[in-house]
Amino acid sequence: MASEDTTPGPALPGQRSPSATLLAGLAGAGDVVADPDVLEAYRRDQAAPGLLAAGMPAALVRPTTTAEVQVAVRAAAAHGVPVVPRGAGSGLSGGANAIDGCVVVSLERMDRIVELDAAGLTATVQPGVVNAVLGTAAAAEGLWYAPDPASREFSTIGGNIATNAGGLCCVKYGVTRDALLSCEVVLADGRAVRVGHRTRKGVAGYDLAGLICGSEGTLGIVTEATVRLLPAPPRSSTLAATFSSLVDAGEAVAAIVRRVRPSMLELLDRTTLQAVQELEPLGYEDDVHAVLFARSDAGADAGLREIELIQELCDAAGATLSVVSDDEAEGRAITVARQLAYPALERKGTTLLDDVAVPLPQVPALLAGVERIAVDRDVLIGTFGHAGDGNMHPTVVYDHRDADAVLRARAAFDAIVALALELGGTVSGEHGVGLLKTAHLDAELGDARGLGRAIKDAWDPAGTMNPGKAI
Amino acid sequence: MASEDTTPGPALPGQRSPSATLLAGLAGAGDVVADPDVLEAYRRDQAAPGLLAAGMPAALVRPTTTAEVQVAVRAAAAHGVPVVPRGAGSGLSGGANAIDGCVVVSLERMDRIVELDAAGLTATVQPGVVNAVLGTAAAAEGLWYAPDPASREFSTIGGNIATNAGGLCCVKYGVTRDALLSCEVVLADGRAVRVGHRTRKGVAGYDLAGLICGSEGTLGIVTEATVRLLPAPPRSSTLAATFSSLVDAGEAVAAIVRRVRPSMLELLDRTTLQAVQELEPLGYEDDVHAVLFARSDAGADAGLREIELIQELCDAAGATLSVVSDDEAEGRAITVARQLAYPALERKGTTLLDDVAVPLPQVPALLAGVERIAVDRDVLIGTFGHAGDGNMHPTVVYDHRDADAVLRARAAFDAIVALALELGGTVSGEHGVGLLKTAHLDAELGDARGLGRAIKDAWDPAGTMNPGKAI
Repeated sequence: MASEDTTPGPALPGQRSPSATLLAGLAGAGDVVADPDVLEAYRRDQAAPGLLAAGMPAALVRPTTTAEVQVAVRAAAAHGVPVVPRGAGSGLSGGANAIDGCVVVSLERMDRIVELDAAGLTATVQPGVVNAVLGTAAAAEGLWYAPDPASREFSTIGGNIATNAGGLCCVKYGVTRDALLSCEVVLADGRAVRVGHRTRKGVAGYDLAGLICGSEGTLGIVTEATVRLLPAPPRSSTLAATFSSLVDAGEAVAAIVRRVRPSMLELLDRTTLQAVQELEPLGYEDDVHAVLFARSDAGADAGLREIELIQELCDAAGATLSVVSDDEAEGRAITVARQLAYPALERKGTTLLDDVAVPLPQVPALLAGVERIAVDRDVLIGTFGHAGDGNMHPTVVYDHRDADAVLRARAAFDAIVALALELGGTVSGEHGVGLLKTAHLDAELGDARGLGRAIKDAWDPAGTMNPGKAI
Repeated sequence: MASEDTTPGPALPGQRSPSATLLAGLAGAGDVVADPDVLEAYRRDQAAPGLLAAGMPAALVRPTTTAEVQVAVRAAAAHGVPVVPRGAGSGLSGGANAIDGCVVVSLERMDRIVELDAAGLTATVQPGVVNAVLGTAAAAEGLWYAPDPASREFSTIGGNIATNAGGLCCVKYGVTRDALLSCEVVLADGRAVRVGHRTRKGVAGYDLAGLICGSEGTLGIVTEATVRLLPAPPRSSTLAATFSSLVDAGEAVAAIVRRVRPSMLELLDRTTLQAVQELEPLGYEDDVHAVLFARSDAGADAGLREIELIQELCDAAGATLSVVSDDEAEGRAITVARQLAYPALERKGTTLLDDVAVPLPQVPALLAGVERIAVDRDVLIGTFGHAGDGNMHPTVVYDHRDADAVLRARAAFDAIVALALELGGTVSGEHGVGLLKTAHLDAELGDARGLGRAIKDAWDPAGTMNPGKAI
């Protein structure tokens, strides 16, 4: 209004050279980087390349304290530029992809375990602590941090919270949200607020920690989190079983989950198995159309051990072969195909990893439908994933240099998402929406999408926090 | 603005005779009642009488469908009167207490189990289904609805969701929020919106089902819910152990939760035990200062059964006596003191049942502090509850006809809440805030309270839905 106003205006979208005033405003936000070569490495996460927008940040900051994160958020707000928070950058949906002119706030240097309270069965960590590092620290106290995304060796707790990451053992032990007790969040206005409870139960106020979990940085930046730990589980046994049809394997899954609670229940299909055997011949017969892997950490009921019951149920469903082992090393050996599933598919081309979940009885229909889509669209799709909670990862393999193949891959991907919705499922079980799935949100959420937006607008009226993602 | 406007104005606060236009607007909302004798019975929940406001409703509606709930909410909104939803009225915090001139929406007639999907391990229910009724229906399919508030024989799933009810087995199996997959909610503007996911995992959009859970009807009215079921747990064993000091019992709890996951871990103190033995002599020795009850549904690890390990840990912590049983009837017999705890205290006077939770290592300090408060305030306080997750119910017993006793009881109650906060805890572990704990929210939540309010304001700008409760 007044001409004396010297506050810099908002950065123009697409502006590539950061304004000196923004950089000056970022002083105090930790390590501040404007070097384009470094920024280039912070433009995108691990989502399939070439499909999603990834802008050029005006600046990268690598804070080490909450106060530094607050400085960064306030500076971005003052300059009207977006803030894009980033953990390890291992996300698969573009949630951490940069926006032109934004400030990327990488939490990688906030990697301190603040407190491991063994008596309280909690850990308080900065967001940049790697999942497996927390796991190791907990194990040293005879405790366990359960959420185990496949990325656990490199993904961070902050990123896990942002996406509400799942994993293999969540079929029994829950996802990240189930482990999150409370967190400190830097909001769009730069305030640092603690939400949730340090106690294992607590109903005072709305469940804001749960709301933050899975919000992909659109409501604020998690700068500290208190998570619950569990006693280390009892020793586990492992099963692998092969089936000559997906229907038989689906029946085995249905029978198992209705009777017992395996700590892992994974499935992979024939296409995936073939890719695995091309990478490493494991001796699976040609007629194997599905492999099921299970682990059990429960003991015996009425004299029958849980893992043996699981084996019986597999055999009754028509397993062509089933083996069980109580030995950890042997257990790893008989499930190696599951570990190799994604690397084996990646080796065959560029991959577009989907992440849909359907109600349990619909898993066979999902698998059959994906096979049809692969034929119809003339693409290779290997499917594997968490059969025990209906969350599968159909993975479209294509040649990214072949424009037609890219189109077919994308069409197959969209068809899989549409199929999951048709079956009463969700467009994302655990990877998050990011940029990859926003187009499908209206179909899934209906009016609920607007309710989420109303929260976003109330907490972040200027829309600074990771705009365009998640909701 | 225009004098031709014939829309009725908002009801005045305190107005006791419902306007004919409001009643006319409620036509189509199911059974509509304006009879003061009936309304009287719908004014309050089971919170300690005399301490909390309970207004006179303008009308009660007992809808049987979502559409009828929508009619009621829209009519209330049009007349500017509050809506107070109500389940079984068994809440303990005044969350269902009426407000002068409000419309009470009782969900008691929406008591249909819409679908029990045994293969999908889900149940879809109307909100008025009683917890135990759902449990029985699930058991008929060999399945289990885990959340087990003490009120499970009469409280409803809708009420359980409104308060995010806990229970005994939630130490291992989680609270209501952990069981809630999705729900349909009638919002302040009368829209019915489905939030959450039917799948066991799902990260599309914010976690709005989690947000609704525990919001005590302040964001909307749950008109249908899909909850997850589990396979029936394996057979359980039961332990009871006595201790000559609270410190020893606290040490036993600490040792147990760090090693294993009992499916129940309850404690009661000497005052409670004395009240129980006055009601029914159970032969506990006079020197017993604490009793611990545990159940285990896990099997053996390395040959040692979990229940036996729990017993060993109790004995090592100085238990004066410990017994274990694998028999269900015997298990009930050795834990009867826990079932009688609250009835026995209720028999001794009017009770003010508190519900605080503290971090696990603070349980002994909480118990010792409550003993001090009882002496300082010259009141009787019996404490029992869910030691395994730090959620205790110190119960102040007083004579409600003695004005001074009422003041001392209230002061003791407030001192317990303050103590819990001092110990890093929460003012409510599972009963909800209702009207009873709103005064303590600022002390616990700080800025997070405003974040909750911003959501409330965004979803319910006129403040129609159960105003003054929960947040």
